[in-house]
Amino acid sequence: MSEDLSLWHDRPAKNAILDFVKRVCSRQSTQFVPPSQRIAVFDNDGTLWSEQPFYFQGLFLFDRVRALAPDHPEWKKTQPFQAVLEKDWPTLAGFGNKGLLELAVATHDGMTSSEFEQLAGDWLATARHPTLDRLFTDLIFDPMLQLMRYLRKNEFKTFIVSGGGIEFVRIFSEQIYGILPEQVIGSSIVTRFEVNDGKPVLVRSPQLNFLDDNEGKPVGIQQHIGRRPIVAFGNSDGDLQMMEWTKAGDDARLGMIIHHDDAEREFAYDRMSAAGRADRVLDEASDRGLKLISMKNDWRRVYPFEGSCVN
Amino acid sequence: MSEDLSLWHDRPAKNAILDFVKRVCSRQSTQFVPPSQRIAVFDNDGTLWSEQPFYFQGLFLFDRVRALAPDHPEWKKTQPFQAVLEKDWPTLAGFGNKGLLELAVATHDGMTSSEFEQLAGDWLATARHPTLDRLFTDLIFDPMLQLMRYLRKNEFKTFIVSGGGIEFVRIFSEQIYGILPEQVIGSSIVTRFEVNDGKPVLVRSPQLNFLDDNEGKPVGIQQHIGRRPIVAFGNSDGDLQMMEWTKAGDDARLGMIIHHDDAEREFAYDRMSAAGRADRVLDEASDRGLKLISMKNDWRRVYPFEGSCVN
Repeated sequence: MSEDLSLWHDRPAKNAILDFVKRVCSRQSTQFVPPSQRIAVFDNDGTLWSEQPFYFQGLFLFDRVRALAPDHPEWKKTQPFQAVLEKDWPTLAGFGNKGLLELAVATHDGMTSSEFEQLAGDWLATARHPTLDRLFTDLIFDPMLQLMRYLRKNEFKTFIVSGGGIEFVRIFSEQIYGILPEQVIGSSIVTRFEVNDGKPVLVRSPQLNFLDDNEGKPVGIQQHIGRRPIVAFGNSDGDLQMMEWTKAGDDARLGMIIHHDDAEREFAYDRMSAAGRADRVLDEASDRGLKLISMKNDWRRVYPFEGSCVN
Repeated sequence: MSEDLSLWHDRPAKNAILDFVKRVCSRQSTQFVPPSQRIAVFDNDGTLWSEQPFYFQGLFLFDRVRALAPDHPEWKKTQPFQAVLEKDWPTLAGFGNKGLLELAVATHDGMTSSEFEQLAGDWLATARHPTLDRLFTDLIFDPMLQLMRYLRKNEFKTFIVSGGGIEFVRIFSEQIYGILPEQVIGSSIVTRFEVNDGKPVLVRSPQLNFLDDNEGKPVGIQQHIGRRPIVAFGNSDGDLQMMEWTKAGDDARLGMIIHHDDAEREFAYDRMSAAGRADRVLDEASDRGLKLISMKNDWRRVYPFEGSCVN
């Protein structure tokens, strides 16, 4: 049975997963859940791939700001653009989600969905992580990939529920996670249907449609799935409400929090981080029945490129 | 092969479906489409079930207005409530979608998603069609159920894309259509996550979130599926943009329009109908490469209760 999660050490986290799957999938179990109701949701940044030194989609936006800056001389003296151009990260962090949104809007307004897909796809295919010097799509967590395959083998449906942009995550979700675009939930900006020169297009507008973070996550789940998940994985305070919503269902539920405590193989951060802050979620995990995953102690490796063999 | 669509007469509509499926599913075909991209979308009202004398969700709203009227004496003199209470349908029709939305908001504000599900579920389990004296969930189109089963057997994913409320359609979509809640797209009102007495709930707010009709349908499809459909079925002008978006894709696409021309077994209506008006869509069908389905001539039966045997 341990073959199923061979990238996980035989510790409580792994055992909790194996035990849960056994309980809900066995027809003899009093906690049996029919396959159509086996919904498992995963945060993306910090849960399925890394998010340091900052959310990767943020790094994409910063590159976009730099690329477009020559056409926008006013950005040199306008926040939050100025902070990006001057690499003044503390100032930028002070603008929070609103600042990022402003960058997203300013750099992608009027673009069609397929133009955005092309642009972000090109970036993902070439841009490299500033310290690890890898493609961002290499920086995915191998034990989580294995976990999702294990759940799907047991007739779970796996969904991403990301604070990041839905159109950004969908560019790589099928190829690197095996998650189809219709199983990605994320933040979005308002999109309009237009016919340009006889050709129908979807055009991105300069306005937030939905912020899929914190209280937004259960709302996004209801909007897209219409059913309460029975499994949720996250890593930061932004995942708390998703955990709360999942755990409040009847019968068996599994909620787990990945703790970034592995400075050697990945990054070590929690309460003070600008990206993926984990403060309340650590304080409340135990009371809420959430189980912690230590990247350092529970995972045999972090990234796929660390090696093709285990043991 | 005709066994697959035995409720359809051997005429061009049926042949177009069988031919399309053969072309996209055969690995030898130049138009082969991998299963993950076999997305088929279906309008609901007038495409999968009836919509006369008015959209069934509208009839539900009218019943709600009548039930709540004793607590709202002001409704006797306030539109659009007055029109509902006086059964003044022409006046109500004049208020259009906006009027219906106002009714929806006034009758369901502050309700949680599960309270709404209970209320609408109770109505669907007991309310009867005003002239056919049947449960509304009996008034589904048997040839369309058979078609959806046929497509799913050929590894298509079937989605509903309805102008009606997403939470309303989900109540019965799995049981009567075999379509899971995560494959239902529809109009929605703003929903908030709240914790009441320690219990997390989703509360309906008095504000439109998304109108999944006309230009909204391609937007809803992009938001939920993230991929252009290759098959679309509809019946009214509200489906035109969904058809346009589907047909504008490369390679093989199938767009079909159900024409309500069967006064004897269902209803006959098109250009002048308050519900499901089909005017532009009939004018433009041929230019847009959309194929018409005549309920009268293409379907061996309309409703499942008409009989268990065919031929």
